[in-house]
Amino acid sequence: MVKGNQSFVFESKPVIISSATVGGPLEAEGPLSEDIDILHDDPYIGQDSFEKAEKLMLEQAATKALEKAGVSKYDVGIFISGDLINQIISSSFAARTIGIPYLGIYGACSSSMEGLTIAASFVDGQKVKYVLTGACSHNNCAEKQYRYPNEYGAQKPPTSQWTVTGAGACLLASEGKGPKVTAATVGRIVDMGLTDPFNMGAAMAPAAVDTIEAHLRDLGIEPDYYDIIVTGDLGAVGHKIALDKFKEDGINIDEKKFMDCGMMIYDREKQPQVFAGGSGCASSAVTVYGHLLKKMREGHIKKMLAVATGALHSPLSYQQKESIPCIAHAVAIEM
Amino acid sequence: MVKGNQSFVFESKPVIISSATVGGPLEAEGPLSEDIDILHDDPYIGQDSFEKAEKLMLEQAATKALEKAGVSKYDVGIFISGDLINQIISSSFAARTIGIPYLGIYGACSSSMEGLTIAASFVDGQKVKYVLTGACSHNNCAEKQYRYPNEYGAQKPPTSQWTVTGAGACLLASEGKGPKVTAATVGRIVDMGLTDPFNMGAAMAPAAVDTIEAHLRDLGIEPDYYDIIVTGDLGAVGHKIALDKFKEDGINIDEKKFMDCGMMIYDREKQPQVFAGGSGCASSAVTVYGHLLKKMREGHIKKMLAVATGALHSPLSYQQKESIPCIAHAVAIEM
Repeated sequence: MVKGNQSFVFESKPVIISSATVGGPLEAEGPLSEDIDILHDDPYIGQDSFEKAEKLMLEQAATKALEKAGVSKYDVGIFISGDLINQIISSSFAARTIGIPYLGIYGACSSSMEGLTIAASFVDGQKVKYVLTGACSHNNCAEKQYRYPNEYGAQKPPTSQWTVTGAGACLLASEGKGPKVTAATVGRIVDMGLTDPFNMGAAMAPAAVDTIEAHLRDLGIEPDYYDIIVTGDLGAVGHKIALDKFKEDGINIDEKKFMDCGMMIYDREKQPQVFAGGSGCASSAVTVYGHLLKKMREGHIKKMLAVATGALHSPLSYQQKESIPCIAHAVAIEM
Repeated sequence: MVKGNQSFVFESKPVIISSATVGGPLEAEGPLSEDIDILHDDPYIGQDSFEKAEKLMLEQAATKALEKAGVSKYDVGIFISGDLINQIISSSFAARTIGIPYLGIYGACSSSMEGLTIAASFVDGQKVKYVLTGACSHNNCAEKQYRYPNEYGAQKPPTSQWTVTGAGACLLASEGKGPKVTAATVGRIVDMGLTDPFNMGAAMAPAAVDTIEAHLRDLGIEPDYYDIIVTGDLGAVGHKIALDKFKEDGINIDEKKFMDCGMMIYDREKQPQVFAGGSGCASSAVTVYGHLLKKMREGHIKKMLAVATGALHSPLSYQQKESIPCIAHAVAIEM
């Protein structure tokens, strides 16, 4: 059902019957490692390129999610996935392996919640019984594509973020046990004119705020409706900007309940190389589909608004001196 | 409603209340030029890069579609779009201009029908009243990204195709007058091991056949249910391969009713530079959303199956010696 200008509710409440996550070496040392199903200590994961390693992580997350639910891939109607690599080859090549009918999406780091929104729409409208949706990123792939290959050893400013190496997938069904997808808000592009690819958090923060405010307005609820409102990858810099903006707009958000996946997935004191925190499609995919859904299943969180944030620029648009258009998609998940 | 393994029907029959198309210089000289709303004789369209020209065409198609329907962009719940450029910047930057909540997709040249499928799902499930969906491509952008910049003057084999310069958009609504979206089949990845980026038609033909056969099987209908079954950009080489495959599989398709947008949009005798025909997201977007929907509105076509075909490789996957994973999504449109 339509709610306001940007939101809608899923009357049938599609259920996340299972989810699974995969992480790389740095994620294995981070505070959420216990909630990551498969951990790798080799960034190549035995493959001959980082791109193939990224694809493999997505395949593993997808396969693990199916296995946990005991659902055969032949019963899944659609696989929806996105990633950061040009032409989203990690997703498309994983879809080749998995063999489920496939819809590729591109929302940069907002892909996880974009995928979950589309998946919920198909399940809610009874188009298919099961939809599998995932997202992935790999530090070495993203750095070389967007900034500099890690091997160059280029210095980074403290506003920079660390692309998460990992993948997450979840399986949606029309019925079953688990957290339910109850509503979604599709984001508009917000572009404040920023151009620095080493400060994505600042660029994305206004988009996160715009979507969260639209969500609250459209559904006629206050922030304290949710036990947690979590952004995808604002990092410490963007998180603070978002909090300041809420204050400015008179939106009363409890600072303890407003969290960021990019700040949760690493320990910035013990892992200083991540600077302002994690980023990438896997930041929200691993944290939400792993750690946070587990907290929901265990009863620690009842209502969550997951807001994945994306910077929709490209190396080419940056070279052509364009600013960075940003977006955020919010999905309400309730037990 | 679920139909078979890959298909579903849209019970509420979302209506395409308007559509609009834009074309470049070669498209203006082609046989469908009269059905293209806006034609440009300058491939730069007054912009300082081909990428910005591509973005502008998508903005023009989207704006024109809204204008034709007399619908304000503020009433449109979602804009869905995809293109071929890395990180789909044409779509995302157009979404910034248009300002409608946005979902980016990547299905290479299958983007038009991927977008229409997702759009129909949102409208059918009453999530939003209006969804705008589009796709675009630009010859100069695609050639330099996937093969060689046109300025190099590299020779091409006769199996090669010409990326269409253009854009198409259509506006879906829960009610109104116009062609109706009645069913869709989401494609699986089909990869026959081909690796030649100068022979996309041959790579994509098996995916088109796979999806069309799944559609007929899932819905329990014969090919003659449709007045026309049209593929997106198989070109002359892929078209023949598809016809041969149908014969081999015992599927009785009337050759006169099985057409390809890439063969319709250019006159290969008068425009020999297109070799086997058109390709790119705009091949199906311009032909289906322009010429073919017009034929439907005029009563010449009552039932159409539009099957957009996509090659989901990237320059990087090609360099890493991967074969080309292909896909095709089919949408049934009926008056």
